[in-house]
Amino acid sequence: MEERVYNFSAGPACLPIEVLKQAQKDFISYGASGMNVMEMSHRSAEYQDIIDTAEADLRELLNIPDSYDVLFLQGGASMQFCMVPMNLMTKYKKIHAVNTGQWSKKAIAEAKKFGEVNVVASSEDKTFSYIPELSADMFTPDADYVHITSNNTIYGTKYTKLPPVGGLPLVSDMSSCILSEVFNVSDYALIYAGAQKNIGPAGVTIVIVRKDLVENAPEDIPTMLRYKTHADNGSMFNTPPTYAIYIAGLVFKNLKKLGGVAEMEKINKEKAAMLYEFLDNSSLFRATVSGADRSMMNVPFVTGDADLDKEFVAEAKKAGLVNLKGHRSVGGMRASIYNAMPMDGVRSLIAFMAEFEAKHK
Amino acid sequence: MEERVYNFSAGPACLPIEVLKQAQKDFISYGASGMNVMEMSHRSAEYQDIIDTAEADLRELLNIPDSYDVLFLQGGASMQFCMVPMNLMTKYKKIHAVNTGQWSKKAIAEAKKFGEVNVVASSEDKTFSYIPELSADMFTPDADYVHITSNNTIYGTKYTKLPPVGGLPLVSDMSSCILSEVFNVSDYALIYAGAQKNIGPAGVTIVIVRKDLVENAPEDIPTMLRYKTHADNGSMFNTPPTYAIYIAGLVFKNLKKLGGVAEMEKINKEKAAMLYEFLDNSSLFRATVSGADRSMMNVPFVTGDADLDKEFVAEAKKAGLVNLKGHRSVGGMRASIYNAMPMDGVRSLIAFMAEFEAKHK
Repeated sequence: MEERVYNFSAGPACLPIEVLKQAQKDFISYGASGMNVMEMSHRSAEYQDIIDTAEADLRELLNIPDSYDVLFLQGGASMQFCMVPMNLMTKYKKIHAVNTGQWSKKAIAEAKKFGEVNVVASSEDKTFSYIPELSADMFTPDADYVHITSNNTIYGTKYTKLPPVGGLPLVSDMSSCILSEVFNVSDYALIYAGAQKNIGPAGVTIVIVRKDLVENAPEDIPTMLRYKTHADNGSMFNTPPTYAIYIAGLVFKNLKKLGGVAEMEKINKEKAAMLYEFLDNSSLFRATVSGADRSMMNVPFVTGDADLDKEFVAEAKKAGLVNLKGHRSVGGMRASIYNAMPMDGVRSLIAFMAEFEAKHK
Repeated sequence: MEERVYNFSAGPACLPIEVLKQAQKDFISYGASGMNVMEMSHRSAEYQDIIDTAEADLRELLNIPDSYDVLFLQGGASMQFCMVPMNLMTKYKKIHAVNTGQWSKKAIAEAKKFGEVNVVASSEDKTFSYIPELSADMFTPDADYVHITSNNTIYGTKYTKLPPVGGLPLVSDMSSCILSEVFNVSDYALIYAGAQKNIGPAGVTIVIVRKDLVENAPEDIPTMLRYKTHADNGSMFNTPPTYAIYIAGLVFKNLKKLGGVAEMEKINKEKAAMLYEFLDNSSLFRATVSGADRSMMNVPFVTGDADLDKEFVAEAKKAGLVNLKGHRSVGGMRASIYNAMPMDGVRSLIAFMAEFEAKHK
């Protein structure tokens, strides 16, 4: 077998090797079809089964109530930054939002094109290294919804409790944490996630949205940007990103086989705890986020010396531990340890860091 | 090797076997990267090379002038139905359009959300079985652009000459004919094409657009729907559909190796001529389109007996000739013979039709 690396990319990110092997096996002919899934008509019975199974497995994994639509869309989270307000910012033309990083900011900037955005809290003062304290009085009822980013890929923070939004619909960008731990879909009005972190290849975006909100969205927006267009057509109003959905489906099957999201959460907790424990005890490295808001998926860390950081990233790459460079706005390093990063990948990273630390005492 | 079928699907459609084999070989590790292309960060040097090479090869294949941007977008042609008017229907808030089929109609309906659409001609009277005669006086200068659908996938027609649009910008949906024959990009202001017919997997849409039009488009439209957003960022404003672009790149490389678009055109002409000749001489089958407007890519045909059509489609499938059912609005059969359909596929289809005809004399 070809040599694989441990890929700590923030996204697109590593996929389970079992999924890749299965897709490789079926590359010239999927089952008895005589063709690759990407050559299949999306109107064929064979492809209908692939997308139906993917949706059913995702519903099972996240325990999604029937009162929610599950949509496979295109355009990434960035497209949701306009689709969400176009469909949902309709009555008050105002929303509340929490600013916890670059993606929150982009979502806020885009929503401002469609109405008023009340930023109730921000952690920008400390390079987004924490989740701001939120209180019920921030969320006045004169808003169409509240927007948050559940896990902040760049800064390595995550919400550990629900914002006290009262009766307001809660909308979350879960691109970098969906399927990583158990949560209650019913706590949200709409959840969106680009696939390229915990789901599958870039090019498919999953939207889980309350059916009543889909029904009540305005009719005069562009056809492709209306959730109802896609909900009414089982995500096949036009040709969906068929292959990306197929790979996502394989990831769902693989996760079910592993025991589902609860089991994955245990593994993720263990992986993250191991890495944070090392960082907290290191004399050379330190995590940039402290306390309860630490992400289980994205772990930024620094040595405090930019040149040494650079050396670490370069040496790690030589050792087969790749994409560890941090985002320029935080600097240093970042290890993204999504569902598909094996425990052994985290162990190898820690062993390498210990070795590097010993060398640079 | 697994058994392959001849897949006459209208899209997603068959891909060159050489492309599939290459991608399969690189599935566990692309070159020395230690990962699949779909696991690569889109910000990595390795992926940058993949997208840059894909763009350069497409520019070479279509001889695209430097004054045009080449964009890799998401959402299919359907998303272009709103993006084109949002970006280009800005001065007169009026366009001219020709109605040559279901996709033209959808483009027209969507454009109406943004201004006036003057339908200069339509072939709906005869189930879109021809391209209407167009004259210069139809295209009054009080319009932002003219919209056409160069090849009509469902009905099997194509334009054989440019509409006499005078100085107006010409916009064309080339989803089902791009790269099938030589054409002059400079005759168009904007060309768009969903990938899933002649380019690659569903999930990437190619837009070739004059740079001055990109620059002059309004700023207040949603960020993701502005061509300038993507042009300014080399199609990487956000994560692009990385794997679909990679496969498209392999298709471009393969086409270059075959001799480019001019060589492909010769092969396509031969494939189509062979099939139409058989149909014109058959005592059982007939093509639904006659004369000069016949598509080289999509060939609808009927026996005149709906039950017999059904039997033909079923029997053909058993013989490994699949997806020959025609669109419900035309009925009968349709053979889509895109670039990736080998000559032997068309020969096998003709041989099977001859056999079927002999049996049903």
